[in-house]
Amino acid sequence: MTPSTNPNKERIEKLIASRKKHRKSLTVSYLVDAISNGNTQALSETITLLESTNFKDYNKAQEVIKQLIPKTGQSIRIGITGVPGVGKSTFIESFGTYLINQGKRVAVLAIDPSSEKSSGSILGDKTRMSTLSANPNAYIRPSATGGSLGGVARKTRESILLCEAAGFNVVLIETVGVGQSEIAVHSMTDFFLLLMLAGAGDELQGIKRGIMEMADTILISKADGENVKKANIARLEYKNALHLFPPNDNNWIPKVETLSSYDNHGIEKCWRIITEFEKQTKSNGFFMLNRNQQQKYWMNETLKERILNDFFKNDTFKQLISQTEKDLVNGKLTSFQAAEYIYNQFKVKQQNDI
Amino acid sequence: MTPSTNPNKERIEKLIASRKKHRKSLTVSYLVDAISNGNTQALSETITLLESTNFKDYNKAQEVIKQLIPKTGQSIRIGITGVPGVGKSTFIESFGTYLINQGKRVAVLAIDPSSEKSSGSILGDKTRMSTLSANPNAYIRPSATGGSLGGVARKTRESILLCEAAGFNVVLIETVGVGQSEIAVHSMTDFFLLLMLAGAGDELQGIKRGIMEMADTILISKADGENVKKANIARLEYKNALHLFPPNDNNWIPKVETLSSYDNHGIEKCWRIITEFEKQTKSNGFFMLNRNQQQKYWMNETLKERILNDFFKNDTFKQLISQTEKDLVNGKLTSFQAAEYIYNQFKVKQQNDI
Repeated sequence: MTPSTNPNKERIEKLIASRKKHRKSLTVSYLVDAISNGNTQALSETITLLESTNFKDYNKAQEVIKQLIPKTGQSIRIGITGVPGVGKSTFIESFGTYLINQGKRVAVLAIDPSSEKSSGSILGDKTRMSTLSANPNAYIRPSATGGSLGGVARKTRESILLCEAAGFNVVLIETVGVGQSEIAVHSMTDFFLLLMLAGAGDELQGIKRGIMEMADTILISKADGENVKKANIARLEYKNALHLFPPNDNNWIPKVETLSSYDNHGIEKCWRIITEFEKQTKSNGFFMLNRNQQQKYWMNETLKERILNDFFKNDTFKQLISQTEKDLVNGKLTSFQAAEYIYNQFKVKQQNDI
Repeated sequence: MTPSTNPNKERIEKLIASRKKHRKSLTVSYLVDAISNGNTQALSETITLLESTNFKDYNKAQEVIKQLIPKTGQSIRIGITGVPGVGKSTFIESFGTYLINQGKRVAVLAIDPSSEKSSGSILGDKTRMSTLSANPNAYIRPSATGGSLGGVARKTRESILLCEAAGFNVVLIETVGVGQSEIAVHSMTDFFLLLMLAGAGDELQGIKRGIMEMADTILISKADGENVKKANIARLEYKNALHLFPPNDNNWIPKVETLSSYDNHGIEKCWRIITEFEKQTKSNGFFMLNRNQQQKYWMNETLKERILNDFFKNDTFKQLISQTEKDLVNGKLTSFQAAEYIYNQFKVKQQNDI
């Protein structure tokens, strides 16, 4: 290795090396105990291990999680989505601070498969939530990066468990309104919150079809100053629209409220709605049913992904698929004949490998 | 074999045996020629072969389809859904007759995985469309029965191709408003039509969430007599509601119209909308793009189904999964640990089989 001529770079490299060494020295039983005692540094270390591509680190994190499972599950898990600019960070800042004043401990996670640590996108920059991040009863962790949505989702879902074991009783999971990541967040939360801007249809383009139907509550954001009237109209419009749509599986009729994180309007109301939702779905059994279904869902999804990856990530079959797609579009085969052909090649290969 | 004492039963058995013998005698080249000449009996015979569980019959049908591919694709494929009682059959009867009067040839297919031939459910009973079924320019075929939705969908999709090769230039595919089968129909049609009843929210319960968002047009049915006013109000409500939702991928703004199959009101309008849709999406390229994507979608779905079935339909793994699900719900493992465990067992088995 050539010596670095940049003293700053050298210092950072030393720091990273020392953190790595430190993490290696942490035992599973230390991490389990520390997290159980609410130690957020141990929590962060474990999430980092979880996100590591190093097999040993990853296995250590899995062992920690396994031992902590009995301490998980007691939080309310809230998904929050909306297009960039709708005011998610400001809302989380106000909402989180309100909850802490009510005696809660609040963890904030994110799913953003597109983010890179350096780009300062979603939650990448804690300064966007300066008040909350400085509060000892808050824990903010940016989205895991790299890998597939499936991978990022897995890490986030396991981070929820770790946060719960560390005593956080409200977990907020933020995402952006781009489709697949919403479905992932919806499948790991108890309550799904959609933030929308008041006004005409144009600014809604960012929300993908189907997202609105997953919402347990819609908040019309930035309902302050001159915007109040517009927000109230939007609220009624959405309320009427949602009324026409069939109810969620949980029999909950989605609420629509206005929100001003600036005026602190709607924050308390939002929490009242969530509390009511929790009470109702716990008494009718949906809450636990949903969590059990979510567990099975993630098990099945992960299993499918693993099995299909053995096939679809194989270079030979990638090539075969793209060739066959040409024959398909050119009308030489039907979809089913094409699938049959590829599948048979797959079977022949399996036989030959034996 | 003991001789049957029921002369009627004996007659039916003889008839079936003679039909089977007749079908066996039909060669691929005969069927290809006959279908190309618009022979609907040959069309029916080939669809029956396609639905056969006999491997030879099935292969013969596949060969027929393969040779006919160049003659397929020129129809407009229209999906029609709505809860039972909304008036789908009556609509198809009026709409189909209208189209034939405009010089079209109309084929009506169905996807109803729940149906059994004997139960007289969706399209099982041609008497529900007596005028249309008597018309030589119409072809009505009930849903394939038995097997998974995937299997029924495959047969229907291949039947579309056969109908096109036989010169039908409008293909209507009917289904009921129960969720998965809608997604299948949506994925094999160019235009998706949803029939709804006028009135308050209650009767909408049958339509699953997400179906409404797939519709290219909503028709408020039974807008006749005392119902007209209610239907007009519903039309405006849905129009406003859809306006709040983001546009489809095809950039088409869904239309909402009232319909009375009884008064023949809305039938012509519906066809005008579909023609406009076809023109618009053909000129902006979406029409062909969508068809190509649908081909790839069905190839991929079929392939995935085949690969996952090797795993999930295996009795050993079925047992392992249900055992592991118990450990999951009892908090002994996380979803990802459970998936990993099952996957590793799968790999070990693959090794052992070698």
